[in-house]
Amino acid sequence: MKPSIDNFLKDIAKQVDEKRLWDRLLELGQIGATENDGVCRLALTDEEIRARQLLITWAQEMDLGIYTDEISNLFFRYDGIQNERAPVVTGSHIDSQPTGGRFDGAFGVVAGFEVIAAMQGASFIPEAPLEIAVWLNEEGSRFSPGMMGSEAFTSRRSMEQILAVEDADGVKTVDALERTLASFPELQKRPLGFPMTAFVEAHIEQGPILEENGIPVGVVTGIQGSRRYRVKVTGEDGHAGTLPMSERKDALLAALEMIRVMRQIFDVEEMKYTVGLFEISPNVPSVIPSTAFFSIDLRHPDWTTLKIMGDAVETLCRENSGPCSVTVTEVATSESLEFPNEIRGCISAASDELGIVNMPILSMAGHDARQLHYHCPTGMIFSPCEGGISHNEMENCDPADLAAVTRVLAVTMAKLSG
Amino acid sequence: MKPSIDNFLKDIAKQVDEKRLWDRLLELGQIGATENDGVCRLALTDEEIRARQLLITWAQEMDLGIYTDEISNLFFRYDGIQNERAPVVTGSHIDSQPTGGRFDGAFGVVAGFEVIAAMQGASFIPEAPLEIAVWLNEEGSRFSPGMMGSEAFTSRRSMEQILAVEDADGVKTVDALERTLASFPELQKRPLGFPMTAFVEAHIEQGPILEENGIPVGVVTGIQGSRRYRVKVTGEDGHAGTLPMSERKDALLAALEMIRVMRQIFDVEEMKYTVGLFEISPNVPSVIPSTAFFSIDLRHPDWTTLKIMGDAVETLCRENSGPCSVTVTEVATSESLEFPNEIRGCISAASDELGIVNMPILSMAGHDARQLHYHCPTGMIFSPCEGGISHNEMENCDPADLAAVTRVLAVTMAKLSG
Repeated sequence: MKPSIDNFLKDIAKQVDEKRLWDRLLELGQIGATENDGVCRLALTDEEIRARQLLITWAQEMDLGIYTDEISNLFFRYDGIQNERAPVVTGSHIDSQPTGGRFDGAFGVVAGFEVIAAMQGASFIPEAPLEIAVWLNEEGSRFSPGMMGSEAFTSRRSMEQILAVEDADGVKTVDALERTLASFPELQKRPLGFPMTAFVEAHIEQGPILEENGIPVGVVTGIQGSRRYRVKVTGEDGHAGTLPMSERKDALLAALEMIRVMRQIFDVEEMKYTVGLFEISPNVPSVIPSTAFFSIDLRHPDWTTLKIMGDAVETLCRENSGPCSVTVTEVATSESLEFPNEIRGCISAASDELGIVNMPILSMAGHDARQLHYHCPTGMIFSPCEGGISHNEMENCDPADLAAVTRVLAVTMAKLSG
Repeated sequence: MKPSIDNFLKDIAKQVDEKRLWDRLLELGQIGATENDGVCRLALTDEEIRARQLLITWAQEMDLGIYTDEISNLFFRYDGIQNERAPVVTGSHIDSQPTGGRFDGAFGVVAGFEVIAAMQGASFIPEAPLEIAVWLNEEGSRFSPGMMGSEAFTSRRSMEQILAVEDADGVKTVDALERTLASFPELQKRPLGFPMTAFVEAHIEQGPILEENGIPVGVVTGIQGSRRYRVKVTGEDGHAGTLPMSERKDALLAALEMIRVMRQIFDVEEMKYTVGLFEISPNVPSVIPSTAFFSIDLRHPDWTTLKIMGDAVETLCRENSGPCSVTVTEVATSESLEFPNEIRGCISAASDELGIVNMPILSMAGHDARQLHYHCPTGMIFSPCEGGISHNEMENCDPADLAAVTRVLAVTMAKLSG
């Protein structure tokens, strides 16, 4: 027997419009579009400012309240019956990787708009107000590490630390931020960390599990931990044609050996080991590299394993540095976390009541929800993504899956609003 | 018994002024000076234009003829008695590596000025005219591969190929060249490839042998061969947190494996193997690298060894590319060469006659003389450099050694002028 569902909730779910959701995703995907159907929309760039403008236009058309804060998060508010209550919040981010896809982050934001549009279509006024949050710089591609908006909001990183971060051209976050905020002088500012009743983020899975199981909705149980490092190797430059191999202090060769040895040591089940950033200097063909700089990104669902492996990074770098010197800095640590049962239960109940098949799933990637988890009861809903491919221009989704997740999100938020 | 020497030649050698030579080197080293006493003076930049201006000022003060050509080589002419004869030419280059030293190239050019100043001081008029050549872009740091000036002059590479080369910012050689030539509109243009009686290049050794032997003058026997490659590895980007290791096509890891295996295979005596350029994309911490691009520079005194090893590069890259694809391009090949006995003999005789200890030495690095060798009788004279260090801001020389080499150069040129 199908679980019973309130008629109001059923009507909201019906009002979720697959085409409107999809069209808005494509419209947002036009901003910073790459030649290969991907998106390059880095935080605090002109493209990202244009994307903010588009969201604001949507919010104005839907008659929503529009707010920002000192880190330039955006909040779009749909008033409830009891507006003194802390809002129930959904949302995600609109920045992308340099060769990113149209759905990572964008889906969670556009789904928020679709949820409110559906409620408006069903003439449903929630008890507590509902809001869509757009968190600054989740990806951390330009200003690294990312999650700046959600970390500043939840005080998980200080504004001082965040504002001092520089991009590759030496532009400071504080200056890029000022420019973005100055583009929207009319927006009212909220304080950081205002109370929330709950936060539920819809996102694409960025992995293959839901697709492989043919299931449109993933109820996220938690997020796997991650540890991130920057390694700087210092050798000595010299002439490629004259300096004998035995007298060289080649920073590139030293870095390669560290990376290779860690690749072997970290070859345990479910471990993900990525060196995504790698640069040498002076970086010219006939000069022996004097420095190498690279990132290490380690992730594992089990925190104990990740802790042990991560603690070995510095030693492994030192032991394999050959004639060079090396410094290792851990730039970010996120313990594995589990979302509370009250939110997971609410999501799976909503999905069941709508007759949408769902399964529990662990998030392999970090999300803004990781930070919000320490601020209010938090959960996530995943949608399948084609081939599990993400952080890639080929990222793609089935509009029907995205609509199914949005229906579950709409009913979940309506329920959480009390 | 000390070999006899013509009084005129003795007088020229005496007129070589160690202090004037050193001061000019320091003055030239101010242009593009780095914080650490090095030089960054890349070809066709503002700094290099300012260095040209300085040389032109010196030449005007010394009443020399000043010429350029379509690739912007510079020629400074000291007229002889028989000016219809092909000139005896010395010189080198004034561009540097990004973190280069004050002597590489610059010494050969400044020594040319000192030779003519000494001849003027001794009121010596040569039979054939003498010239100082300043060859464009020997280093190839900005526009790669280098040796553009000497290769264009000797038709060893076509102007069409050279002009199409782009720097890292996408600026074409043709445009940067036009800008440099337009900075000196008053200079008369010579045709490429005009006849020369001989070419003798003074240069720092860029290796430790002369210093280790305590010998101030190296009579260069020839130049070791080199083979240069560019390797492009193509994998697939993806999310660092979600994509299992077994499903990845990580271009960085594939490139590292190629470089490591070649390091082992090419570990034969006297081989120099350098990966000096290494870049990945998208080059962000949380994305699996989709491409890697690197250079290989292989050098060995024995051409047969170098031929066999170099021929294996493409296979070694392919065999170690894992799940990625790879393309290998050989961008430059230089066979080992031997300078003619007539020039080597003339240099060692000049050195002997001046009572300056000298030794034969093989050049491990390429020089413009490599190209001129195919144009006219060519030779080189080396000076020791401190610790054998070059292509490095710490590059340093003993002023007395540089003066000794310049004396030998002056007498050699006077003799070659007939």
